[in-house]
Amino acid sequence: MTDPVSPLAPARFPDMPLVGGVRFASCAAGVRYQDREDVMLAVMQPGTAVAGVFTRSATRAAPVLDCQAKLGGETKGQAAILVNAGNANAFTGAHGQASVAAITAAVAQATGVAADRVFTASTGVIGEILPHDRILNHLDQLTTSLDPAAIDGAARAIMTTDTFAKGASAQVKIDGASVTIAGIAKGSGMIAPDMATMLVYIFTDAGHDQTALQGLLGRLTDQTFNCITVDSDTSTSDSLMLCATGAAGVDATGHAEFEAALEQVMLDLAHQVVRDGEGATKFVEIHVSGAASDTDAKTHGLAIANSPLVKTAIAGEDPNWGRIVMAIGKSGAEADRDRLSIRFGDILVAEKGWVSPEYTEADAAAYMKGQDLVISVDLGLSDGSATVWTCDLTHRYIEINADYRS
Amino acid sequence: MTDPVSPLAPARFPDMPLVGGVRFASCAAGVRYQDREDVMLAVMQPGTAVAGVFTRSATRAAPVLDCQAKLGGETKGQAAILVNAGNANAFTGAHGQASVAAITAAVAQATGVAADRVFTASTGVIGEILPHDRILNHLDQLTTSLDPAAIDGAARAIMTTDTFAKGASAQVKIDGASVTIAGIAKGSGMIAPDMATMLVYIFTDAGHDQTALQGLLGRLTDQTFNCITVDSDTSTSDSLMLCATGAAGVDATGHAEFEAALEQVMLDLAHQVVRDGEGATKFVEIHVSGAASDTDAKTHGLAIANSPLVKTAIAGEDPNWGRIVMAIGKSGAEADRDRLSIRFGDILVAEKGWVSPEYTEADAAAYMKGQDLVISVDLGLSDGSATVWTCDLTHRYIEINADYRS
Repeated sequence: MTDPVSPLAPARFPDMPLVGGVRFASCAAGVRYQDREDVMLAVMQPGTAVAGVFTRSATRAAPVLDCQAKLGGETKGQAAILVNAGNANAFTGAHGQASVAAITAAVAQATGVAADRVFTASTGVIGEILPHDRILNHLDQLTTSLDPAAIDGAARAIMTTDTFAKGASAQVKIDGASVTIAGIAKGSGMIAPDMATMLVYIFTDAGHDQTALQGLLGRLTDQTFNCITVDSDTSTSDSLMLCATGAAGVDATGHAEFEAALEQVMLDLAHQVVRDGEGATKFVEIHVSGAASDTDAKTHGLAIANSPLVKTAIAGEDPNWGRIVMAIGKSGAEADRDRLSIRFGDILVAEKGWVSPEYTEADAAAYMKGQDLVISVDLGLSDGSATVWTCDLTHRYIEINADYRS
Repeated sequence: MTDPVSPLAPARFPDMPLVGGVRFASCAAGVRYQDREDVMLAVMQPGTAVAGVFTRSATRAAPVLDCQAKLGGETKGQAAILVNAGNANAFTGAHGQASVAAITAAVAQATGVAADRVFTASTGVIGEILPHDRILNHLDQLTTSLDPAAIDGAARAIMTTDTFAKGASAQVKIDGASVTIAGIAKGSGMIAPDMATMLVYIFTDAGHDQTALQGLLGRLTDQTFNCITVDSDTSTSDSLMLCATGAAGVDATGHAEFEAALEQVMLDLAHQVVRDGEGATKFVEIHVSGAASDTDAKTHGLAIANSPLVKTAIAGEDPNWGRIVMAIGKSGAEADRDRLSIRFGDILVAEKGWVSPEYTEADAAAYMKGQDLVISVDLGLSDGSATVWTCDLTHRYIEINADYRS
């Protein structure tokens, strides 16, 4: 937990605007970590719409199952979210459900929010019983310190192996009124589509139709969080929730600028998660075009992004485009070796199935020394395209993951 | 190429029996490596049946396409196989086909084997033109040194990042006659089902129906080479060929003992490939039972075997069974968290969705210090089962693959 900050981190945590209708609190409950805040609470005003997207893992953690059971209705209302770090409350059998029930009941009592509007998440070690009494013992402290300006503390409290807290925001005008969107995220390992050990909470003071909010969140997730991968592993606890309080007094349902701003906040947070990828030293954008379909393009992009041989070559600053050809070949999506072209940044590496006559390895090797890299692949088949983001695979990843529990 | 021998390697290359009807030669042609043999030639007598299984990569190398085009008929006859190491002749456009044509024509002329019975393979760097003249310049040396006892040199000549040469053999009686099976393999990285940067050549002096031989090889490949994975990456050049010369004077078609012996040779070679996995320090057998189907069991097994988080935990000798739960959850195959049980060796770690009451981490940690590990997962759903084999993910893998071309 004392890892140096990722070299790819933003210079600092951004200045976060207030979001009307939401208050935050965080505290050090000692769930697992000592000497740091590890529990956050967010409470939303009456009339709030809540949407959520969760891991598709068949071994989902108890809090995920509880959240999924509570979402889906059309009712708006007060809502609360409590998250702890250090213990995932996953694969804990009947104990897991009992912990969730105890926490949600206590939060409901302490905040006045109905228990079926209290959502929880837990992140950290799998398979150990959550000592939820430690959280309950701090509920008074949390509820008495709720503050609209305390989102920074919430962002820090949900970190596990993260080396920096992650936040992003946007503001947009709807019918003359200013609407704010602000989100926080955690996640650095076990990051892959569907989704990651990733917790993301986004708040807006826009109002929104409840059912439409769920559809919007799912659609934007496919273009943002489901396009990033660190190590192809998927967690049992991934949760992304979006709360629209309506405090700004306008309804954003179907509003294109609002949706674009929300996507931008989600993409920003998703990129920050990749930039905190365990051991990452390179941020890599992989752009695939000319594929038989958008789905094929994403399949190729993720095959490249998840290939250990591609990721280690990037770590070694080696422009080993042969491994990109290999990854495309194994992806299962359509490809024609003799129509492929590959670029590193603006450098044309290969075209029509062979290395470009103008290519020099010295140019490409110089490009690979950069911290932010773009790899472009054109399949030459049709107009399907996709962009995915990943990081390199380094010694530090091995160190972090061979020692995580020790 | 001066890597220390894998700690998982067998003590030495096995004593290999002669296979009637096959002669071998190898030489140092300087294709890429200096001061070592890098080309092997095998020539089989008239009446030989030849079967082959190849990578399914969409970016297959030129020699693979050539072999696939030549196989599939019902004709038996003389045959030759020429393999070079150091250059994969993959993603080399029209140059690639020209190299294959030049080599096969020259081998046909030098050996008297028909050109459409000359098979080639190339392994090594992708995307560089194969300097095939260097091979042609050594054909006289190869053909004049053909020797039934020279299989050891052939096994060494096809190595790339391999740290030891791989061979296996079996003998079985058919109708009172002794039949021999002997095979060699190379491969240590880019190893995954469908298949790997893996070249495997198996020879037997049994006779065999040509069409049935192809069916047998495909079936046994699914149970052996398609059940191993080192890093989930698949090469553009994987080739597995089986030649039945008939020199023993008996026909093995449909003979159960022969098929069992052949499977044993294939499994032995497949395990040796895993034991030479780049950077491997642990050989891991993953046994999945109780799955909804055999296919589901293999999906779960490969999800566990390919998970970077599982593989790094094994490298760290950490009995982190939570990561196995994670991998099962993400695999996409059917699972019920509350019916799962997991064992490390004989140690019951978890059952019915939670850690076993008799489990102690000290026991499991002691078990993980072993070199050969068995992880067993029972899904508790039905009777589908599968076994897959893999190795751990270590710093050495990163070193090898961040530097391979440098």
